[in-house]
Amino acid sequence: MQSNNSTEGDTFHIRKLEISDKEKGFIELLKQLTVCDSVTDEKFKERFEEITKYGDEHIICVIEDVKSGKIVATGSVFIEKKFVRNCGKAGHIEDVVVDSSTRGMQLGKKIVEYLANHAYSMGCYKVILDCTEGNRAFYEKCGFKKKEIQMVKYFV
Amino acid sequence: MQSNNSTEGDTFHIRKLEISDKEKGFIELLKQLTVCDSVTDEKFKERFEEITKYGDEHIICVIEDVKSGKIVATGSVFIEKKFVRNCGKAGHIEDVVVDSSTRGMQLGKKIVEYLANHAYSMGCYKVILDCTEGNRAFYEKCGFKKKEIQMVKYFV
Repeated sequence: MQSNNSTEGDTFHIRKLEISDKEKGFIELLKQLTVCDSVTDEKFKERFEEITKYGDEHIICVIEDVKSGKIVATGSVFIEKKFVRNCGKAGHIEDVVVDSSTRGMQLGKKIVEYLANHAYSMGCYKVILDCTEGNRAFYEKCGFKKKEIQMVKYFV
Repeated sequence: MQSNNSTEGDTFHIRKLEISDKEKGFIELLKQLTVCDSVTDEKFKERFEEITKYGDEHIICVIEDVKSGKIVATGSVFIEKKFVRNCGKAGHIEDVVVDSSTRGMQLGKKIVEYLANHAYSMGCYKVILDCTEGNRAFYEKCGFKKKEIQMVKYFV
């Protein structure tokens, strides 16, 4: 294990999502973020493979608590190819969540830095995300600034 | 030309971006939105093919003024695959712009409806976008509601 891939004396290990993470509480963790029904092994595998197909253009990272074997934090980023900004790319961070039992341990910051660094390494000119006003201070500590407002239209 | 693909008595034609649209002012239109340098034919073709490769998962639509042969409005949407919402999908609308000479003709609304309908047809549970507070009323007329705030980190 390389030191730059670990935190808190190797108690927490940050890495990309693996298919075995379903057994390590990945879906239960997402339930702390938003509506997330239980997913069958088959459906999980199908979606995992659909996302993996994009390679570095859509990654999901997780932090595993090595002692308990549980996934305690996650977030994703995908790379959008544009024509603006001299055919630039933008990174979109989505679905960042830290397990309620491990909050205050900088794991969210580790996730966001990992995802932002990935977007940078992919040549993005910016990385963006949407969050509540309540999470604004957290993202400012991660180097983000408020820019616009998010609008949404739900179909279901 | 089908009636549901045209507006204003066939003066304006809405459709997906074609490679020949570079010659019809597509890049000049984007310059009205944000920083957008001139793009060589080769670079345009490369990016066009990169995006086309995603098929229905990332589309750019345009409105052509049939009389002048100019592209007067555009917008894009890509489909993000998630684990939340029972392995749901979210549509992300980006880079919507209407030529300054044709504003007030509902072309922006046509673009947004086209993109939102595409996201719906792809099975998305929602479609989202970021905009300025000044454009909020426009998107509310398109059926969107304000939800969160957008945070950004620029690399260049």
